[in-house]
Amino acid sequence: MPSRLREQATITMNNVQTALTMQDAILTLQKYWSDNGCMITQPLNTEVGAGTANPATALRVLGPEPWSVAYVEPSVRPDDSRYGENPNRLQTHTQFQVILKPDPGNPQELYLGSLRALGVDLNAHDVRFVEDNWASPALGAWGLGWEVWLDGMEITQFTYFQQVGGVALDPVSVEITYGLERILMNLQGVSHFKDIVYAPGITYGEVFGQNEYEMSRYYLDDADLDTNHRLFESYAAEARRLLDLELPVPAYMYVLKCSHTFNVLDARGAISTTERAKAFSLMRGLTHETATLWERRRAALGHPLGVAAAPAPAQRAALPKVPGVETLLFEIGVEELPYADVPATTEAVRESVTAKLADTRLGHGAITVMATPRRIVITVENVQPRERDTVRTVRGPKVAAAYKDGAPTAALLGFARSQGADPADVRVVDVKGVEYVSVTRHEEGRPAVEVLSDLLAEVVSGLRAGRNMRWSDPGLSFSRPVRWLLALLGRTPLPVVVSSLTAGDTTRVHRQAPYPEVRVTAAEGYPHFLHMHGILLDRDARRGAVVRGALEAAAEVGGRIDVEDQAGLIDEITDILEFPYAVRGSFDERYLELPASVLTTVMRKHQRYLPVMDGERLMPHFVTFANALCDDDVVRAGNEAVLRARYEDAAFFWRADLKVTPAEFRRRLDKLTFEDRLGTVADRAERIAVLALDLTRRAGLAEETVDVVRRAGALAKFDLASQMVIEFSGLAGVMAEEYARRAGESPEVAEALAEMELPRSAGGALPTGDAGAVMSLADRFDLVTGMFLIGAEPTGSSDPYGVRRAAIGLLNVLRTAPAVAGLRVSDGLRAAAVRYAAQGVEVPAERVAAAAELVTRRYEQQLTDAGHEHRLVQAVLGWADRPAYGDRTLATLERHIGTEAFEALAAAFQRVVRILPEGGVEAADPSLLTAPAELRLAESAEAVRQALHGREDDLGALIEVSGPLVEAIGVFFDEVLVMDPDPAVRAARLALLTEVAGLARTTLDWGAL
Amino acid sequence: MPSRLREQATITMNNVQTALTMQDAILTLQKYWSDNGCMITQPLNTEVGAGTANPATALRVLGPEPWSVAYVEPSVRPDDSRYGENPNRLQTHTQFQVILKPDPGNPQELYLGSLRALGVDLNAHDVRFVEDNWASPALGAWGLGWEVWLDGMEITQFTYFQQVGGVALDPVSVEITYGLERILMNLQGVSHFKDIVYAPGITYGEVFGQNEYEMSRYYLDDADLDTNHRLFESYAAEARRLLDLELPVPAYMYVLKCSHTFNVLDARGAISTTERAKAFSLMRGLTHETATLWERRRAALGHPLGVAAAPAPAQRAALPKVPGVETLLFEIGVEELPYADVPATTEAVRESVTAKLADTRLGHGAITVMATPRRIVITVENVQPRERDTVRTVRGPKVAAAYKDGAPTAALLGFARSQGADPADVRVVDVKGVEYVSVTRHEEGRPAVEVLSDLLAEVVSGLRAGRNMRWSDPGLSFSRPVRWLLALLGRTPLPVVVSSLTAGDTTRVHRQAPYPEVRVTAAEGYPHFLHMHGILLDRDARRGAVVRGALEAAAEVGGRIDVEDQAGLIDEITDILEFPYAVRGSFDERYLELPASVLTTVMRKHQRYLPVMDGERLMPHFVTFANALCDDDVVRAGNEAVLRARYEDAAFFWRADLKVTPAEFRRRLDKLTFEDRLGTVADRAERIAVLALDLTRRAGLAEETVDVVRRAGALAKFDLASQMVIEFSGLAGVMAEEYARRAGESPEVAEALAEMELPRSAGGALPTGDAGAVMSLADRFDLVTGMFLIGAEPTGSSDPYGVRRAAIGLLNVLRTAPAVAGLRVSDGLRAAAVRYAAQGVEVPAERVAAAAELVTRRYEQQLTDAGHEHRLVQAVLGWADRPAYGDRTLATLERHIGTEAFEALAAAFQRVVRILPEGGVEAADPSLLTAPAELRLAESAEAVRQALHGREDDLGALIEVSGPLVEAIGVFFDEVLVMDPDPAVRAARLALLTEVAGLARTTLDWGAL
Repeated sequence: MPSRLREQATITMNNVQTALTMQDAILTLQKYWSDNGCMITQPLNTEVGAGTANPATALRVLGPEPWSVAYVEPSVRPDDSRYGENPNRLQTHTQFQVILKPDPGNPQELYLGSLRALGVDLNAHDVRFVEDNWASPALGAWGLGWEVWLDGMEITQFTYFQQVGGVALDPVSVEITYGLERILMNLQGVSHFKDIVYAPGITYGEVFGQNEYEMSRYYLDDADLDTNHRLFESYAAEARRLLDLELPVPAYMYVLKCSHTFNVLDARGAISTTERAKAFSLMRGLTHETATLWERRRAALGHPLGVAAAPAPAQRAALPKVPGVETLLFEIGVEELPYADVPATTEAVRESVTAKLADTRLGHGAITVMATPRRIVITVENVQPRERDTVRTVRGPKVAAAYKDGAPTAALLGFARSQGADPADVRVVDVKGVEYVSVTRHEEGRPAVEVLSDLLAEVVSGLRAGRNMRWSDPGLSFSRPVRWLLALLGRTPLPVVVSSLTAGDTTRVHRQAPYPEVRVTAAEGYPHFLHMHGILLDRDARRGAVVRGALEAAAEVGGRIDVEDQAGLIDEITDILEFPYAVRGSFDERYLELPASVLTTVMRKHQRYLPVMDGERLMPHFVTFANALCDDDVVRAGNEAVLRARYEDAAFFWRADLKVTPAEFRRRLDKLTFEDRLGTVADRAERIAVLALDLTRRAGLAEETVDVVRRAGALAKFDLASQMVIEFSGLAGVMAEEYARRAGESPEVAEALAEMELPRSAGGALPTGDAGAVMSLADRFDLVTGMFLIGAEPTGSSDPYGVRRAAIGLLNVLRTAPAVAGLRVSDGLRAAAVRYAAQGVEVPAERVAAAAELVTRRYEQQLTDAGHEHRLVQAVLGWADRPAYGDRTLATLERHIGTEAFEALAAAFQRVVRILPEGGVEAADPSLLTAPAELRLAESAEAVRQALHGREDDLGALIEVSGPLVEAIGVFFDEVLVMDPDPAVRAARLALLTEVAGLARTTLDWGAL
Repeated sequence: MPSRLREQATITMNNVQTALTMQDAILTLQKYWSDNGCMITQPLNTEVGAGTANPATALRVLGPEPWSVAYVEPSVRPDDSRYGENPNRLQTHTQFQVILKPDPGNPQELYLGSLRALGVDLNAHDVRFVEDNWASPALGAWGLGWEVWLDGMEITQFTYFQQVGGVALDPVSVEITYGLERILMNLQGVSHFKDIVYAPGITYGEVFGQNEYEMSRYYLDDADLDTNHRLFESYAAEARRLLDLELPVPAYMYVLKCSHTFNVLDARGAISTTERAKAFSLMRGLTHETATLWERRRAALGHPLGVAAAPAPAQRAALPKVPGVETLLFEIGVEELPYADVPATTEAVRESVTAKLADTRLGHGAITVMATPRRIVITVENVQPRERDTVRTVRGPKVAAAYKDGAPTAALLGFARSQGADPADVRVVDVKGVEYVSVTRHEEGRPAVEVLSDLLAEVVSGLRAGRNMRWSDPGLSFSRPVRWLLALLGRTPLPVVVSSLTAGDTTRVHRQAPYPEVRVTAAEGYPHFLHMHGILLDRDARRGAVVRGALEAAAEVGGRIDVEDQAGLIDEITDILEFPYAVRGSFDERYLELPASVLTTVMRKHQRYLPVMDGERLMPHFVTFANALCDDDVVRAGNEAVLRARYEDAAFFWRADLKVTPAEFRRRLDKLTFEDRLGTVADRAERIAVLALDLTRRAGLAEETVDVVRRAGALAKFDLASQMVIEFSGLAGVMAEEYARRAGESPEVAEALAEMELPRSAGGALPTGDAGAVMSLADRFDLVTGMFLIGAEPTGSSDPYGVRRAAIGLLNVLRTAPAVAGLRVSDGLRAAAVRYAAQGVEVPAERVAAAAELVTRRYEQQLTDAGHEHRLVQAVLGWADRPAYGDRTLATLERHIGTEAFEALAAAFQRVVRILPEGGVEAADPSLLTAPAELRLAESAEAVRQALHGREDDLGALIEVSGPLVEAIGVFFDEVLVMDPDPAVRAARLALLTEVAGLARTTLDWGAL
C-alpha cells in the first residue's frame, strides 16, 4: 500500500491505543446509534447468553411495529468459563446489540460508520463480511448474515432475522451484535482480555478478573446439580403457568431463566444427550408460545408503536429510445453472498438469461455472466434495437360453429372481438381435416428496451439460492439482499424496475472508497471499469490473483503453497473477495511443536489462511487475503494476533493433554455422559472394545490384528476427554493418534484409534487398516443399535444423533474393506445389542430389526444415488446385510443382464419360482421321479450344486455353470405336468423344483428382475 | 426574583422540555461522570431492588481499594407494582447510581454539576439536601446523607456509606442515586411516567407500558407462591454452599436472588411477620458473611486496584501576631445538617467554647454561637491579645527524700530536671505539716492566637451529634461532613488546624452563587456579611422570615397559617434553610373532598408544606420554602406537581375505598397475615373484639359503652385493608374513623375505632373516650401476649414487633383513663391468652408471666425516667399491675415521705414486718392475747381495718387513720416479748402482728423504703 496511507493508519492506531477505552467505546456506540435513530436501553436484569435473548430483541422483532434499539448486553456463557485464564474466552463477555426494524436499506453502511466512529480506519484495516447463518434451535430462531471480520478477528455478528420463536418475521429486522472485548483487544493491540484498558487507568482484568474466576468456579466446578435441576423445573413450570395466564413478558423471563440454568448444568457436564433434546424441545415450545402470545397481545394493544411501512413498489419511468445495436450491461448489486452462492448464482443467472432471451425475438450476441460476492454482472453483446416482426395465425371456432345460415354466430363474433379483428377478415384454415376460422396477425417486434426491462426484472425476481431470506424489499427473496441495479444499453440507462428497486446508471465499489457510489457511462468495458476501482469481476482473474499472491507471499520466505491440496480453500477465498490482496503473516515457531493437523485445521477451517510449506514441512507462516489494498502491517498484526490467540489455546491444551496418559483419559470418560439411558462415554468405549474383538474374530482376522484391536479397544475414544478435542471436536481421532504415539503406543494401535473415527462424513476418507476398519464398524454398530434401542432413531429430516451418517459409514466400510467384507450387518447389530443387554438396557428384537432395516434403506439409497437401475437394485437388496457381496452381485448382474444366456437363466428360474407354492412344499419321495425330464433336471441340479460348492452366493459362478440346468428346466416344463393329479407325484416334483430354485435364490431376488 | 432570571429559567425549561429525552439524560450522566473520573459499568444481570445492591456498590465499597463508578440500574420493587396506572410508581424504575470511593471532598458540588449538565438551572430551581438516613437491615447497611429535592420532588438519594454487610467501611464511599423517572418528569413537565419522552418520538409508556402491566400482574396476582417459596430456599442454600466454598461473587448473586424472591412473595402478601424476621435475619447473615469473605479475598489478591490514601493531616503554619483586643470569628462549615442537629449543635458548641475558654486565662467578652444547616459560627468579643501571666509552685519529693547527708538525692535531681530548674533553686514548702521541696515557676500567658487555635481545634474534633458518621477526613466524626473552617481574629486569619482541615479566611455561600466561595475580611459584622450573600445566620431571624413569609403568602389568597399549631414544623423549616424564601402553591379544589387529615398528613409529613387555612377550613393552597431566591413559577410548578401526584394517589385510594363497606374491609382482613403462628389480621381483630368486651365488663362500664365497644370490635382494624392505609400506614385509625362515619356508623363507634390506634408513640395522644381506651388496651394486650406466646418478645435493642411500644401504650392508657384505672394488667394478659388458647395457640403460663414482667419493667422505667427516687419507685412497683393506683400511691408517698408521722408509720410497719418469719405464721388462739399492749394493738388494728374498709389499697387513707395504731405498735414492742417461750403464746402474738402487717402491705413495699 502507498506509504502515505500506511503512515496515516499507524497514526490512527496509536491514537486509538492511547485514547479509546472500553467504556469510551460503549459511550461512542451509544452516541452513534442514538444519533442514527436508535433508542438506547439497558441490559436485561436476568442472565442471558446473548443480546438476542433480551426481549428488546427476541420479542420486539415480532410483529409489525417499528423498533430500533441499541444496548449493551453482558452475555453469560457458562460453557466459556476459563477461570479468567484464557486470553479470549470469558464466562461473561460484553455484547453491544443493535436492532434495526425494519431494515433501513443500508445497514452495512451504518455499521461501517460505527466502526469509523470507534476510530477504525477502514482504508488501513481489512473489514469483511463473512457468511454466517445464525440459528438458535432453542429459540426457534434463525437468520442469514455474516460474521464481520476485522483483520481476521470476528468482531460482530450481522444477521437479517427471519424467524423467532418459530414465527416468521415481517418486517425483517437487522441485528448487529458487536463483541466488544474482541474489538477492544484489536484496537488497543493487547493479546489478553485482562489487559484491555476499561477506563482510564484501570484494566478489564482489574475490574472483572475476580468475577471471571469465581463465576468460572461456579459454572465449571461448584454449581449444585440437584439445586439447578430443581430450578430448571420450577422456572419451566412458572413459564407454563404464565403463558396460560396470557402474560408473555414474565413468561419469557422464566424461559430465559430456564435457559441459563440449562447452560449452567451443561457447563457442569450434567446434561445427557436425551436431556438436552428434551430441554431444547421444552424451551423451543415455550418460546414459540411466548412469541405467538406476544404478537397477539401487541395486536390487542393496537400496536402502540405503530406499524412499519414497507417500501413502496417502484414506478417505471418512460422507456428511452435506443435505435442502434448496443451492448447490454446489467448488474445486480447484492450484499456479500456466501462463497458457494457466487458460482452457483453465476450459472443460474446465465441459464435464466439465455433461456429468457431465447423466448423473445430479440437478436443478440454473446451472453456473459460474471460475479463477485457483491455483484452479478450480465453482459449481452450486439443487442438489436428491436425484436423481429412476425406473422401469427390464431385459430378460432370450427367453421361449422362459426356460421349459421351464412351469418356469423356469437362464437365467431366473440373470437373476432377477442382478437381485435373484423369478423369479415377471418380466414378458414384446415387442421387435420377439420376447418376452423382463424385470424392472421402481423406482430411487430417490441423495442429491445421493453423486452429487456421486463426480462431483466424477471431475472432479478427469479434469483434463488440454496437458502433464501427476506429483507426490506417487499417482493424479493434471495441469499442476501439485493441493494442496487445497474442497467445500461450502450450508454443509455435502462429503467428496469423490480419490486422497490429501480435500475440506475451507478454502481457501488468498495465501501471504504472516498466515493463508494460511482456513475457508469457505458456498457462496454465494464470489467476494466471495475478493475480501475479495485474490483476483479472475472472469477478466473480473481482466482489467479489468489494463487499468484499466495505463491509470491510464500516465496518471500522461501516457502510454497500446495495449490492442488488447497484447491477447495482457494476457491472459497476467490468467492469471498472482490480484490484478493495477499498479506503474509507469521506465527511463533514454538507453535510448530503442535501437530501439523492442529495447526492447519485452525488456519484453514477457522481463518481461511493458506499454510506455507517448506517441502512437506509446515513453516511458521500463512497467507491471508484482504478485500482491497490495506495497510499490510495493520492487517498482518491483526491476523497474527488472532492466530496467536488460537494457537495459544491449542498449545495450552496440547501441553496440558501431554501430561495425561491415554489410559488416564480413558478413565475420565466415565465423567462424560453419552446418553443417560445408555450410560457414559466410558460405557460406550467399553462396549466398542468388546464388540470390536468380537467382529475381529467373526471376520477371522490375523492374531496380530486381534492384538491391535484389543489394545485400541482398551483406549477407545480416550481423546474425547482431552482438552484439545473438547475444544476442537473435529480433531477427535487425530489427537488420539498423536497422543497415543507420544505415549508409546504402537503405530498400529495409534492408527486404529485414528481410523475408528472414519469416515467423518458420507463421502469421507475410510479406514485403511484392518484394525481401523473393525474399530470403525464397532463404533457405528454401537451407536446405531443404541439409538434404536431407546427410540432415538432418525425421523423425517431430524437425526440429532447422526444415526443415518453412522449407518452410511458402516456400509462404506463394509463395502470397501476386504477384511470385513464377510461380516453381516445383522450380526454386528445383534452383537452390539448383546453388549447393551449386558449393561441392563432392554433389547426388544424388533428394534434391532428396525436398525437393520435402516441400513438396508441406506444401502438402497446409495445404490440408487450411484445410478443403478431400480429393478437391479431391488434384485440385490437382499445383500444389504453383506453389502460387499451385494456390490459384487450387482456388478455381475449389470455385466450379464440383457445377454441371451442370462435372460434364459432368469426366465427359467422365474418359471420355477412362480410355480412353487408360497408356503413351501411337503416332504416327498424322490423315487417317484422317473420320467427322463425329471431325472435330467435332478441330475443337472445336482451338478450345479456340486459346482457351486463354497460359492453358493456367487451369481457369476451360477451363470457360468447353469447352462445345462437351464436347458433341463426347459425340457422339464415341456414334458412334465408338475401338478399331477396324484398328490405324491406332485409333491415329489415340487420338491425337485424347490431344490432347483434353492440354487439360485441365494444370489438374487429373481422375482424383482 | 428578578425578571431577567425568571426569563432565563423559563427558556431553560423550554429547552429542556423539547430537548432532553430520558436516553439523553442517561447518556449525559454517563458522560458527565466519566469525565469526572468514574468508570461506567452496566446494570446487574439479576434482579435487584436498587443500584446499591449491585456488587459494583455493595461489595466494592468494602475494603481499602479506590472505586469510582457510575451505572444505570433498573430497580425492581415488586411492592410498587401498580399495573402502570399510578403516575409515579413503577415495579421497575430506573436508577442512575454513582459511587465515589473515597469521598472526593466535594461530592455535593460534583452532584450539582451533574444537574447543570442535565440542563437544570440551579438559580431558577430549588435544589435542597434534605436529611435522610439510609439503612437496609436486610443488607446490614447504613449511611447518613440526604434526599435531594428538586422543587419538592425527591430526585436523588445521597448517602455517605458507613457500613455494609455489618462491616464498617474505611474509606467511606459516597453514594449518589438518581431517580431518573422523577427527574425527567420534572424536567419535561409531565405528570405521568408514561408521558416521559424516552427517545425522540417515543414515550416511556409506549416502551415499557406493557412490561409494567404484565410484571405487576405477576408480582401482585399471579406469582406462584409455592414455587417462589421453593426458589427462596434453593437460592439461600446455594448462597450458603458458595460461602463455604469461599466464593463471595456467586454467593452474593444468590443472596440477591433470595432477596428478589422474598420481595415477590411479600408483594403477593405471602410473608408473615415472623417469616419476614426470619428471612431478614437469614439474608443479613449471608450478606455479612459475603462482605467479610469479599474483604478477605481482596486482601488475598493483594488489592488489585490499590489502596486509597487518606488525606494527609494538615500542618499548621506559623501563628500570626495579633497585638490588640479583637473579635474572634470561627465558622465550622458543614454539609447540610439534619434539622434537629442545628439547635442541638448550637447549644453544644456554646457550652464547649464557654467551658474551654474558662479553662484558659484568656480574657474575653460575650460568646455567641449561631448556626444554619451549613455553618456553626462562634463569635467571641473583646478577646485579649494574651492570657494573664501567673506564678505556679510545683511540689517535688519530701525533703526527707530530697537530701541525703545534705546532698541532693537522685529524687531531687530528677525532679529538678523534670521542671527544668537548677537543683539549687528548689525551695521548701510545708503541706499539712510535711515538708516538700518545690519549684516556683512564673508562667507567661500564651498569645491568644495560640490558645484559640488549639481550643477551636478541640471544639471541632469534639463535635458530636445524636448520630455521627465518617467521611474523607481521617480524624473527624460528626452528623455530616465538616468541609471548611473560617477563623479570623479581628482581621487576621487564624491557622486553626484540625485533622486534614486548615482554617482560612473564606466562607462558602449558596452553591449556585456565581462565586460560591468568598473571602471574609473582618470578624466584625459577619451576620450582616452573610445576609448580603443571602444567608440568615440568626435562627430567630430565620424563623421570623418563615413565619412572615408564610403569613404573607397565605394572606395573598385570604388565608392564614396556624402558627401555633404548626410550631414544630416551622421550627423544622427554620433549621433546614439558610434563607427561607416562601413560595405559595395551590392544588385542585377537588382534592378537598379528601379528609383534611389525609391532605395535611401529606403536606406536613411528606413535603414540609404549611397548610393554608380559612378559619378551620383547609384552603387549596400551601406554602413551601426555597432555600434562596428562585424562580417562583418554576418552583411552584414543581412543588404543585409533586403534591398533585401524591393527592392523585390519595384521591384514587379514597374513591376506591369509599366503594367498600367497613364490614367488607373487615372481612378482607383474613387475606392479611398478622403472624403465621398467630393467624391473620382478621383473627387478631376478632380476638381484640372479644377481649375489649371482656375488659368493658371487668371495668364495669356503662351499657352504652358496651354497645359502642361491641360494634367497634366488630369492625376493629377494618381500615388496614383499605388502599389508603396500605399506602399511608400512618393514617390507620384516622381512616377507620373517616370511613366508618361515611358508612353511617355512630360517631362514638367511629371515634373508638380511631382511638384504638392511640397512642401511636410513647408520648403520643391517648384515647379520650372510654370505648376508645378499652379498644386501645385490647389491641395492646393482644399484641404483647401474642408475641410472648411465640417467643417474639423484645431482646436487647431489637423489638421488631413493637412490643415495648405496645406495653408503654397500655400503661399510659391505664395510668390516665379513669374508666379503666381499675383494670389489672395481669387480667388483660390472661384474658388475651385465653383468646389465643381458644384459637389453638399453646399458652404456657410462664410466658404470660414474662409478659407481665415486661410491663412491670416498663412501668419502672417510666417512673424512673420521670425523675422519681429509686427507692420510692421500688416501693410502689408492686402496683405495676394497676399502674394508676401505683401513681396515686407514689404521689401520696412523695407527699408524706420525710414527715415525722410517716417516718414513724414506716418504722413501725418495718419493725412488724421484720419480726415476722418468712414462711408465714401458724394458726393461733387469739384468746391467749391478754396483756394490755396486746389488746390495745388488736383493737387499734381492728379500728384501722374498719376505717380502711373499701380503701385497703389507699396509702393516704392508711396514713390518715393509722396514728393510734403506730402508737400501739410502739407500746406493744416495748411491753411484750413476741418470742415468748410458750409456742402457743408466741404464735398468737405473731398472728396479731401478721394482721397488722396485712393492713399496710396492700399499699406499699415497706421494706424498699
